[in-house]
Formats: sequence, structure tokens, C-alpha cells
Amino acid sequence: MRTGIATVCLSGTLKEKMQACAIAGFDGIEIFEQDLVTSPLSPEDVRKMAADLGLGLDLYQPFRDFDSVSEDILQENLRRADAKFKLMSRLGMDTILVCTNVGTATIDDDSLRAEQLSRLAELAGNHGVKVAYEALAWGKYVNDYEHAHRLVDTVDHPNLGTCLDSFHILSRDWDTAPIEAIKPEKIFFVQVADAPKLSMDVLSWSRHYRVFPGEGQFELAKFMGHVARAGYSGPVSLEVFNDVFRQSDVERTAVDAMRSLIWLEEQSAKWLDAKAASLAAEGVSGDSPANAAGRRRYPMELATLPKVAEPAGFNFAEVKTDEPAQLETLLGQLGFEFDGRHRTKDVQLWSMGHARVIINEQAPSHSEPAIAALGFDVDSPVIASARAQQLKAPVVPRKVQADEEVFQGIAAPDSTEIFLCQGSPDGTAAWTSEFGQTHEFGEGLKHPTAGAQAAIDHVNLAQPWQHFDEAVLFYTSALALEPQPFAEVPSPSGLVRSQVMVTSDRAVRLVLNLAPMLQQEPGQKGNGARKSYQEHIAFAVDDLVATARAAQARGLDFLRIPANYYEDLDARFALDPAFLATLKELNLLYDRDANGEFLHFYTATVGSVFFEMVERRGNYDGYGAPNAPVRHAVQYDSLHAHH
Amino acid sequence: MRTGIATVCLSGTLKEKMQACAIAGFDGIEIFEQDLVTSPLSPEDVRKMAADLGLGLDLYQPFRDFDSVSEDILQENLRRADAKFKLMSRLGMDTILVCTNVGTATIDDDSLRAEQLSRLAELAGNHGVKVAYEALAWGKYVNDYEHAHRLVDTVDHPNLGTCLDSFHILSRDWDTAPIEAIKPEKIFFVQVADAPKLSMDVLSWSRHYRVFPGEGQFELAKFMGHVARAGYSGPVSLEVFNDVFRQSDVERTAVDAMRSLIWLEEQSAKWLDAKAASLAAEGVSGDSPANAAGRRRYPMELATLPKVAEPAGFNFAEVKTDEPAQLETLLGQLGFEFDGRHRTKDVQLWSMGHARVIINEQAPSHSEPAIAALGFDVDSPVIASARAQQLKAPVVPRKVQADEEVFQGIAAPDSTEIFLCQGSPDGTAAWTSEFGQTHEFGEGLKHPTAGAQAAIDHVNLAQPWQHFDEAVLFYTSALALEPQPFAEVPSPSGLVRSQVMVTSDRAVRLVLNLAPMLQQEPGQKGNGARKSYQEHIAFAVDDLVATARAAQARGLDFLRIPANYYEDLDARFALDPAFLATLKELNLLYDRDANGEFLHFYTATVGSVFFEMVERRGNYDGYGAPNAPVRHAVQYDSLHAHH
Repeated sequence: MRTGIATVCLSGTLKEKMQACAIAGFDGIEIFEQDLVTSPLSPEDVRKMAADLGLGLDLYQPFRDFDSVSEDILQENLRRADAKFKLMSRLGMDTILVCTNVGTATIDDDSLRAEQLSRLAELAGNHGVKVAYEALAWGKYVNDYEHAHRLVDTVDHPNLGTCLDSFHILSRDWDTAPIEAIKPEKIFFVQVADAPKLSMDVLSWSRHYRVFPGEGQFELAKFMGHVARAGYSGPVSLEVFNDVFRQSDVERTAVDAMRSLIWLEEQSAKWLDAKAASLAAEGVSGDSPANAAGRRRYPMELATLPKVAEPAGFNFAEVKTDEPAQLETLLGQLGFEFDGRHRTKDVQLWSMGHARVIINEQAPSHSEPAIAALGFDVDSPVIASARAQQLKAPVVPRKVQADEEVFQGIAAPDSTEIFLCQGSPDGTAAWTSEFGQTHEFGEGLKHPTAGAQAAIDHVNLAQPWQHFDEAVLFYTSALALEPQPFAEVPSPSGLVRSQVMVTSDRAVRLVLNLAPMLQQEPGQKGNGARKSYQEHIAFAVDDLVATARAAQARGLDFLRIPANYYEDLDARFALDPAFLATLKELNLLYDRDANGEFLHFYTATVGSVFFEMVERRGNYDGYGAPNAPVRHAVQYDSLHAHH
Repeated sequence: MRTGIATVCLSGTLKEKMQACAIAGFDGIEIFEQDLVTSPLSPEDVRKMAADLGLGLDLYQPFRDFDSVSEDILQENLRRADAKFKLMSRLGMDTILVCTNVGTATIDDDSLRAEQLSRLAELAGNHGVKVAYEALAWGKYVNDYEHAHRLVDTVDHPNLGTCLDSFHILSRDWDTAPIEAIKPEKIFFVQVADAPKLSMDVLSWSRHYRVFPGEGQFELAKFMGHVARAGYSGPVSLEVFNDVFRQSDVERTAVDAMRSLIWLEEQSAKWLDAKAASLAAEGVSGDSPANAAGRRRYPMELATLPKVAEPAGFNFAEVKTDEPAQLETLLGQLGFEFDGRHRTKDVQLWSMGHARVIINEQAPSHSEPAIAALGFDVDSPVIASARAQQLKAPVVPRKVQADEEVFQGIAAPDSTEIFLCQGSPDGTAAWTSEFGQTHEFGEGLKHPTAGAQAAIDHVNLAQPWQHFDEAVLFYTSALALEPQPFAEVPSPSGLVRSQVMVTSDRAVRLVLNLAPMLQQEPGQKGNGARKSYQEHIAFAVDDLVATARAAQARGLDFLRIPANYYEDLDARFALDPAFLATLKELNLLYDRDANGEFLHFYTATVGSVFFEMVERRGNYDGYGAPNAPVRHAVQYDSLHAHH
């Protein structure tokens, strides 16, 4: 698949954008006119720079408001087009995007439109230019790709073809199947964008909220499948207007964009395989002769990625700090066992059943505890790592001794290190043998409870606002996690946006939180960002009340839940008074839905980390969302009390 | 008018919110349930604290999903209500908001609803509680205030009344005139919120984008006028869900909120006067007997503010720096005359006709030039200042000698100092006599062009994102500027949102720009914020080409416009080749619309300030918006070249 991206997706100057596209590995770009107009580079400079960078200049865009006008305006528009065609010749470009008229159209007449487009095609032909005609979702008279293509068919000129843009088609819920009926030589260009399903006017939605494929909710694999089955094999190019991407680091965004196309390529191939299988089962080819011939002549090549399966679970979570004392105390009080120090590294291992927590002391001095890494159990760490790297995830360098297990590590967009570990059927981890008991404890912690069972239930990571969509695509594409519907939780410092990512069996639950602006670290950029917002690791146990009692006996500093909460809980759920008293006594939180019940408690925060213990009863699948505002408020209060 | 605010409008804990409301001067508050549930304060603590702060506890809210349910759920809901009524008694509160059912309603039957509401009213009566029933715009069966009120009327119970919320009424475009037909004793509560006109689903719109009155586009004075004419004289309370306000400094937001009610009070009184006049002209009273009686008994008292007229023009603009050399050079090259230094302060005056620029050198060392103050010509500085202070604008302290003009100064939300100056018919300013020629110039600037005419055309100020809406209300209410429709301009670092505020004769044009996040100073808060985004002052001249030629001869460092811009300009406008050559030679920008033409150029930036010279031909009323991306791109480029 020939990959492309419009310069309007990215921040910076035209030069910076082109360089970032080349680094990210795009085959070609669309030049957004304003990027050229505002650039000090001459058209000849741009042409040379693109050639040096190995970037095709695949589309000049946009040319607006051409058709459906009176003759005097048409003359004016042809003059304008002539100037742009000459400019394109200096740029060495041969395809221009012409959108259906939004602003100046006054005559709704298809035969007039066809005649005007025919004159444009004729002029374009004289300059060796191809016109790709695109229906905007909010076009005044033409807002539907089939309508636009009927005009192209009517004109039937070699220099006029169709441009298909997934946003303009899917935002209007147009059926995509008829794309297959379009003759391949009449599709001049394909643009792709994803978007969250928002109910707002389509223009605002388009101009601000488009995202890269895999970051929204459009059925893009199906769209691309129909495009491929039409016999199209030209550029597939991203055109994504997004307020955040326009502000973010240009190279990071270009890589995120490229990852989305690589992922889309794989998803499209899967869709095509399934389609072919279902057609074969029905005994039909489903092809028009033109498209079948087109596909034979120029098949769209869809590269494959190393396969991925959902991770089977969390292998470990790692907290980094050079001041581990408070963490050790907290884990001991929760009931974790100390499994010793690593034999070559300055690292401790703590566990409670299959819940393993690493305290990594290889941190700069005065580093407060922060979640630094997560391990996931996968079938094959090497294959998973190869996949992630083909998806352009940055590799985490890690020194290992000859006889130690090699971890395959990649960096997530928020800088958390993700390790792809060899899972085992019994939930143990071979690498734990590299740890041995060498550490001295205080009196109270010498004999932590042995044999308690727990597992990591979920991990909650704070995301910088510039990289939230990128993170969703990263975990979707590299780790096969599935995004759940978005939630928003009020806190005293603002709304916290929360995106749950899970495996189908819920063995892995990852929560990505977008914290309010004012809580974010200024100047976060790249993978070196420091984390300032609280994050946590939640452990699931069988008996939360017993766990809490034991922790209380060991002196755990629970997050204190206000009495008002228990009154409201009672008003809502009419709980058994003894049970309510236990909840209140132990600072436990409670939730219930049609599927089951949820009990949980939080520890105090150390650095930017705290822990949660949870018990799921029945098939409760949530995270106690109604209790999250309480947690935020109490944490806010204790933070402000400290200051 | 009794002023109120819901705690959900503000950031922080319940305690912080209550304190901020008291400081801002609210009469009462609505307690948003979650703020109480998450608070460590007991209901008794809250009651005492409110009493100590002099805050009424006017409304407990919300109680959701009560009516239109099956009998078993109703029993459950009555139990839930009973618990809340008991809680309210501990809080010493007597009114609760009950919203129409959104989530659990299954039976659409007004007689059943009336019966269920009647049982609720009966229970409430036993606890001395009044139920204020409110139609949510997205209520499942009841989403219209008239429908909700018909139910109240049917039940006809002293403990059941209506709550009117401007958002739920105006977002659905319901007619507000029928409010006048409601009996005053049946209106238990009134909530007000403004909002920008957005076409999105009404729930998202409501939950994220509400703003304080005067910051949106709803006809709130009319809504309030009908409410007052109904005979209502209870609390008028803000309920504004806004993502930004929830993150902003709680005391600032509370003051902004209070300002919006004070302003709304004035606007409502104006609407009522106009209404009374028009009814008197028609010879009708327009009253129902009940409402007329209600109004006589408990008239809504609408406080008046000192009157305001639009400013007649800019009096001056002030730039602050302790390193003025580059600024002096720039102003001299533009054709400004040096009018001398102030006789007691470390301040210079430069002028070109009526355009006056003060360079204030009383700045901390190494302060790069930044726009620090603006002077506006008003009829009466004392009245205007009194008005601004009643609108809670912070006063700027300024030392003056006995024989100097006293400036009335207030601080705008972005920390710019706004001075209210005595205008004069001939555009001169008396205070200029405090300046005298004492300064030495370099050779090239000894005799700047005398007699050149100019005026300040507009000033462009960057706004921190937390205070953008506040700034709109500030200039609307304190200075009578009128907000124009919002615009968005692409820049290499993201979209710049631009809000023009003008007087009706366009003598004052102020542009508030909301810069992309990454260009904003971290930790901006309060009035001490340092500015990091570029701002500018634009001067209007009669002959821009001559002005530019003279400036070029004096060696001015123009903002260099790329050649591509002129090619595109020619493609768009087919300009006369000689004129185009002049534009290109002098780095002039050009725009044209149906009303006229606009020529302008920019200087290089010094510190965070640059200047613009403009010429308006015909009735051109814009700011060259199509050229703004070019300006942003070139400024971005030169900024990055410096680094």
C-alpha cells in the first residue's frame, strides 16, 4: 500500500513537516496549499527537497468552490485553476484535489456541473494535471461520493477522476459497498481519517476531531476493503484535522500517523480475507469485470505484520525510586512478600500470589516513586516485539547478563516501558529465580504473610494530553487491547477522562487517564517526560474484608473515606447495617450493578503512586466509577494538606 | 436580586468552594450532592460554616430519576428521598431539586407522574422540605418546562413547585414568554447559565460548554425579564458545568461568576424597562392578576450599576521593558515622534497623530518588551471606574504626584492594566503635558517625521486559556465592548482562537487571542502571569504604501512575506501587476471583500511585542484573516531560527 499524509495533519513549517514524514517512512505527501503559501521555500525548493527526502508529492490540495456557479464566476475559477496548474508544474505534481462547492454554488444542475467540470478537465489536461473530485460532507449541492462519481462518469475525461475520503463518507453514514462498482482507473486518490462518534455539526467534527485510523470509531477496514476490491492501488493518504495533533511534536505525530496506516493495512487485509472467504462460500466472485481486471493489473499490496494475540495477563509492574522505604512498608502492610534482590541489579521483587511488583532503585537521586514499567505475558515475546517494532514503537534498551532472561521492551507514548514476557500456564515467571533473599527488614515486616493469593487486576496510567489518542492506537495495535467506551470522572481539579483498554477475557485491564491541564507537568514532550499525576496498581483478592483487616492490623495508611459517603451509599443501596459498618470501619468502597458487586480500598500515595485492592463479586466488570470522585477528592485534600 | 451559585461550577473541595463564594459576595449556594458526599465535613459542619460565612444554603441538588417508574422502583425512590430529606434537615436546608427522569423512566403517563410527584410532595411536607421540579432538556418523557409545570399545577401541593433553568429552556429553543403565566408562589427556584450556540448533542453541550451569563449567546435578559414579570423574587443561581472553570482557580472563577450575575441584573432591568414602555405604549398591562399581585408583594429588586457608554477610542497603549532600545528604534522607523520623558516617572511617550505609545521602563531588569496597559477614552473615568469596581474588577494601584492626572485603572483577566481616561473631542490627551523632550537619540532618529497622522486601529492580546471566557465578560460588562463571531486561525503550532470585541463605531477594536496550549506559559495563574505569546498593536494610516516606503528608507525590519504568498494572492484576486509588485517589494499584505480593501504590514517582534500598520479602504471591517496564517508561519520560522 502506498502510504501518504497531508501536511495539514502536522505542526510546524512545511520543511519540518516534510522532514518528519520522511523520517516516519511515508511514501508520499499531500501538500496543503496554505503550508506552501506560508513557506519561504520556492516551489522548486520544495520539489528538490521532496526528491532528496524520497517523498512523492502525491496531491496538491484543496481547490475549493469551483462548480455550480454562473459563467462569470466560472471564468474567474478557470483563471484561478490555471495559475495553480502552472504552480503544480513547477512543483512537479500531477494531481489536484477539487472539492465540491460549499460557498459560492448557486445553480443546482448536474448537467451544468458536468459541463463545468469538463472544461476544468480539459484545462487540466493541457497542463498534464489530473483532477481528483471529492464530495465534501457539507457540500452545498454535492455531498455524497456516489453523486460526485456520477458526474465524473458523465464527463468521462481522462483528466477527471474521483477522490474518496473516508471522513466525508462515514460521517454521513453513506454505504461504502458501492465503492466496489467504481472503475479503478477513475479513482484518482483515497484519503483516510478516523473519528470518534460525536453528535455535532459535521463541519466542526471534521475540522477539530478527526483522528488517525484506529483512534476513532469508523469502520475503516471495511472502507479500505471496498476500495481495494474496486481495484484501486494508488496512495492511501491521511487527512486528519485535529486540534491536538496540530500542536504536538511533529516527528512524534508523523510516527503515530504512520503506525495508524500500518495497522490499517493489516486490518484491511483481514477484512478482505474474510470477505473472500464468505464470497467463496456463497460461490460468487462478487466482482465487476473492470474491477477484477484492475485488481489483476495493479493489486493493492497489503503488507503483513507479525501476528499478535491478546496478552494472557500482567507479568509484573515496576515502580522506580531511589527512596524505596515507604513503598516497602506499604507493600508489606498490604500482605506482599519480599522475594529478595536481583543478583546483579539494584532491584527488589515483591509478590502476593501472581501479583509481582518490582521496586527499581536504579533511579536518579530523590526520585519519588513512579510507575515505570509493566510486563505483559505473551505467547512469543520475540514475535510481539517484532510486531511492535514494525509498528514503530521505540525499543527500550536494557542491559542483561548472559544468563539472565532477555526482556523485549518498548516505550509507550507516556514513556512507560512495556515488557513483553514469556507467559506460563501456571502464572509463574522464570525470571524470578534471578532474585534472592538478601534484604534486611524492620521488626514489623520480618515475616510477611506467606501464601496470600492476588493478581494484578488493573493498572491506571496518567496520559499527557498531547499523546492520548496515540496511546489508544499504541495499545490497540501493538498489544491487541480493545478500547472500551470513554468515561469522565469529576475531580476537584477538573474532569478526568478515562479510557479503559482490555483483553476479551479481562485478564488485562489498563486504564488510561487524561488528567486536567493544570495537573500536567509543563513542557512534557517526548519519552523523557516526568509524571506528575497520580497513577496506581490495583490487585484483586478473593476476600477484601479479610485483606483489609490484616492490612489494618499491620498499620496500613488507608485512604480515609468521608462518613458522608457511607450515608449516601446507604441511601442508594439500602445495605445490611452490619456490612455497612464494616465498610465504614475499614474505609472500603462499594459498588453494585446488574452483574455483580465490587469492593475496594486505596492506600495513601507515595510519590505519584498508590495501590488499590479490589474484590470482584459475580460478573462485575467495572472499576467502581461512582466512587472515583470520592477518591479524587480525598487525594486532593491530602495533597493540599501536605502543602 | 438574591444571587446564588451551585458548587459544581467551581474547582476545589466543598470548603474551598464555600469560602470562595463568600469572598465573591454571593447570597447563597446550591450544594451539589457529590461535593458533600466527597467532603470530610459533616452536614452539621457545613451548616455552621455556611452560617459563619453568611451564605444561605438555598438548594440541595440533584435528586434524579424519580418519576414515571413502576411501583417497586417508586418505593425505592421514596426511601432514597426520605434519606435525603433527613440529611437536609441536618444541613438546615429546605429546598431540593428533583429533575425529570432520564434513566429509569418506563411509563409515559402524566396522571401516574402527578400521583407519584404528589406522594413525593407529601413526604417532603412531612420533613418541611420543598421540592423544586425541573425539566431536563434530555428528560425521557418530560423535557419542557411547561410540561413540568403542568404536572406541578395538577398536583397542587404547597411542597411542590417548579425550578426554571435557562439552559434547559434556551438550549431547546422553548418560548420563554409563557413563564409569565406561572403563579409566583409555584416557582421555587431559578437557575441561570449561558452557552455558546453549538450544534452538538444537548447533553454534551450542557455538561462541558455552559458559561456564565454574558459569556455565551443565550437571550438571558429576556428570560430573566419574564421570570421577574411572573412575580418571582427568589434566588437566581448559576449552574454552569464547564470543563475550564472546573480547573481554574476557585476564587477567580467565583468572582467571574458574581460579575456575570451583577451584569445580568442590569441587563434584565433594561429589558424590563423596555418591555414596560412598549406595553404602556400599547395601553396594556400584560399582567395576570396573580403575577401583578406577586410582583407587588415581593418585587424582584434589580440593583443598578453606574452607567457605561462605549469608549470613544484608544487613549494610549503602554509597553513595559527595562531594555527599550529596540522598541525606540522600531517606533522611530515607523514614523513615530518622541515626545519626551515623564517629568517624575521612568516613562517615555511616542506618538504619531493620535496614536500614543508609552514605553514604561519601570520594569524588573531584563524584562523583554510586553504590552502592559491600554488606555480608553471614556465620558467619565470616575463613573466608568466605579462601574468596573462594582463589577469586581481589581483596581490597579498607581502612584501619582499632586499635579498629575489621576488615572483610573483596573486589571483585565490576562493582567493587562486598563486605564479609563478622559476623552477629548479633538483626540488629544491632557496628560501628555507631563512629558518633555529630554532624551538623546542616535543620529538617524534625531528628526523623526513630524505631523504624520495615525490612530490605534486595534490591539491584539493573548489570553491564558483559563480566563478566556472571563475576559469576554470583563470587556462586555465593564467597557461595553461587543463580542463578534469567533474565528480560528491556523498556525504552525496549532489553531489560534480569535475573539474580536468592538464598539459600534469601530473606534475601539480589541482582539482576544487564545493561543495553543504549548505556547502558553506553564503555571499561569492570577494577575501576576507573565506573557509568553506574541501580542501586537496595530496603527491605522491613510496611505500605507507611503508609510511603508518611509519606514523602509529608515531601515525598518519588516516581517518578510514569502514569495508564494504573492503568487497565491494573484491567483485569488488577479491584481494589477504594478500594484502586486509594490506589495511584494514592501512586504505588504492584502485582503479584499465586498465592502472594501485592507493593506497591512508587520514589524519584526521585540520581546513579545510587534507592531502592525494598516490601511482600510472603503468599509472593510476585518483584520486580514486570510493573511494571519502567513504572519504566524513567518513569526514561527524566525522564532525557531533564533533558537
